[in-house]
Amino acid sequence: MHSELNDFLRDPLGKRNIHKKEQGITMIIDKGLGNHSFLDLVETAGNYIDFIKLGFGTTALYPEHILENKIGLAKKFGIDIYPGGTFFEVAFHQGKRELYFETLKQMGFNKIEISDGTIELTNRDRQRSIQQAKSLGFTVITEYGKKAEGSVTDSEQLLYTINADLEAGASFVIVEGRESGENVGIYDSEGKIQDHFPMIARSIQPYINQVIWEAPKKSQQVELMNWFGPNVHLGNIAPDEIYSVESLRRGLRSDTFFMNKKEEANA
Amino acid sequence: MHSELNDFLRDPLGKRNIHKKEQGITMIIDKGLGNHSFLDLVETAGNYIDFIKLGFGTTALYPEHILENKIGLAKKFGIDIYPGGTFFEVAFHQGKRELYFETLKQMGFNKIEISDGTIELTNRDRQRSIQQAKSLGFTVITEYGKKAEGSVTDSEQLLYTINADLEAGASFVIVEGRESGENVGIYDSEGKIQDHFPMIARSIQPYINQVIWEAPKKSQQVELMNWFGPNVHLGNIAPDEIYSVESLRRGLRSDTFFMNKKEEANA
Amino acid sequence: MHSELNDFLRDPLGKRNIHKKEQGITMIIDKGLGNHSFLDLVETAGNYIDFIKLGFGTTALYPEHILENKIGLAKKFGIDIYPGGTFFEVAFHQGKRELYFETLKQMGFNKIEISDGTIELTNRDRQRSIQQAKSLGFTVITEYGKKAEGSVTDSEQLLYTINADLEAGASFVIVEGRESGENVGIYDSEGKIQDHFPMIARSIQPYINQVIWEAPKKSQQVELMNWFGPNVHLGNIAPDEIYSVESLRRGLRSDTFFMNKKEEANA
Repeated sequence: MHSELNDFLRDPLGKRNIHKKEQGITMIIDKGLGNHSFLDLVETAGNYIDFIKLGFGTTALYPEHILENKIGLAKKFGIDIYPGGTFFEVAFHQGKRELYFETLKQMGFNKIEISDGTIELTNRDRQRSIQQAKSLGFTVITEYGKKAEGSVTDSEQLLYTINADLEAGASFVIVEGRESGENVGIYDSEGKIQDHFPMIARSIQPYINQVIWEAPKKSQQVELMNWFGPNVHLGNIAPDEIYSVESLRRGLRSDTFFMNKKEEANA
Repeated sequence: MHSELNDFLRDPLGKRNIHKKEQGITMIIDKGLGNHSFLDLVETAGNYIDFIKLGFGTTALYPEHILENKIGLAKKFGIDIYPGGTFFEVAFHQGKRELYFETLKQMGFNKIEISDGTIELTNRDRQRSIQQAKSLGFTVITEYGKKAEGSVTDSEQLLYTINADLEAGASFVIVEGRESGENVGIYDSEGKIQDHFPMIARSIQPYINQVIWEAPKKSQQVELMNWFGPNVHLGNIAPDEIYSVESLRRGLRSDTFFMNKKEEANA
Repeated sequence: MHSELNDFLRDPLGKRNIHKKEQGITMIIDKGLGNHSFLDLVETAGNYIDFIKLGFGTTALYPEHILENKIGLAKKFGIDIYPGGTFFEVAFHQGKRELYFETLKQMGFNKIEISDGTIELTNRDRQRSIQQAKSLGFTVITEYGKKAEGSVTDSEQLLYTINADLEAGASFVIVEGRESGENVGIYDSEGKIQDHFPMIARSIQPYINQVIWEAPKKSQQVELMNWFGPNVHLGNIAPDEIYSVESLRRGLRSDTFFMNKKEEANA
């Protein structure tokens, strides 16, 4: 492509001239991609992917050589890869937290997710898990929110959790949205962002660079970009949606074509 | 992975230490995968797949070398592969049943589905089709249920069909759910299992090892596992959902994390 | 496969014994397929695909060698490939129409889409864009309809646009349906074809060979086949739905199994 054309055609909104992992993080959920599909993903979209999460406990299901291949390829393309929080919860629930950390280390992971979407975790256990993982050399992501249907995001609790987790050593806090983006956290049963979101958005604003919103649906991605700008951190993006999400961030899709103008109008 | 870790991390519910095709059969619907995707599927998830159905009449559309490749790879990975029932119905409707069986044989299939989801099939024709296919060396799967919108599963009819089909030589009876899982069989227009299901479930219980439920949606898979345990036979699973389904069967996803406990509470 | 079996098993409705790009055009939307997936697509379904659209502005996101690979493979398999209309609108909006045409030429595209789904385009600018693209050697497709939620297809405006665009040199006019097929153009918020469609259908009938309907959902594909026959032109088909669509066109899926009969009954 003509280099002089790069700017206006590749990034019309002009907000994505950035380094990976600094602004506008995108986290992909991998629910069992095979070798060719995974290679396709990183070769085609590696520049637009910061994190790959191996969804829920799927890490346990892979033949060893396929898992090794994923970890190796992710590293090669500068992408952090880690098992979903449910895998941690499976281990914790059985009283095997240390063994879990050790196993992940041996497998080659250097990022880890601490969550309590399904189990109960005391503040003390949560803090200890973060600290211990960190002391073992992991980068730590935590997750806020329950996976049960109808669970709601509470802005005070979320704020408390963000503060406590970051203080304990976490790099990012994910807001639960599940793979479906429906009837959980900030989303209603149709996947729409709930009416009380503006309150959450305002209280979260100071921490926006440490918060990743699970937002599998396009309408959610667009609405979050409208709130926080095109570089809002987004997670649980399906592998075949990464080009759509990056198009939205750049104004290369109708839904965000005029986003700049809106921002200017608001300013 | 540490071998001592295998058990608690790989199968927390402890119900999947089984041989393929004996318990907890999973049938995938293939709607046109190409060579790389198909190889990805069997390499990554071959241990968790028992049957691959080439959906509806898609068998007719493949270039010969791609079809041969599928059949060969499935055999190599110990997976039964067969054309969807609609393909049989196309042939039967044109009075070419024998020719159909012969063609499938020559193509290398050794499993076959007999159904009447679209056409009318008398009890006698159904019985004969099963017997004839069996005498030609095919393993036979049959299907119960109409594909028309709003079709309903009748427990007495289903029971009669299961008995008749198994007696005629069928190995399994599939309960129709289509690719969509909506507004057909035991599912309402939103894909929820209908209110009269408990009656069906109770009457089917004695035959549960011979029944495969088409259940493309996660909520359906979970509800059927809640009814019949994690080793219930499930069909019409999309290729990219196989790791999710196997995670559910093992308690590696939030929705079935505490399934064991529920069972124990009920016992 | 037995050659004598070809006809009844491969094309039971008997309407697909046709040359590509003459009848029953199918346009795929590619939202970021990698090299292996793209090769799978054309190898497996190349005979059933006429056009591949690189959705919205995704053309800008590909590493150069992947884009070159797509363009080369499409040509090898006799498939027209072109960037989505939004990419044109991005360029036009910045006053760089000529540069856009020139860039696409250099990239190896020889088909182009002119649309105003997001921006405003005067009749004169629309006409000029078509003419200019054509004079540069492009085959031109245009699109009618706005992408905004709740936009409606107006039959008089559509008819006017078809006439004007074809006269200016366009080969086909696409009717907007977006990737979702919901709450846009002829579709309501659930993706059902709206009540006023019969009026549109009747007025469009004389131009039916130049019109492509974006119809991502199966119910939409079936309903349009019921209106216009199995060779109606369809667009925005997801890559993994191409075998389903071709099955529908041939009567190899339940939904169109008896389509011939219906037509005969209407005759």
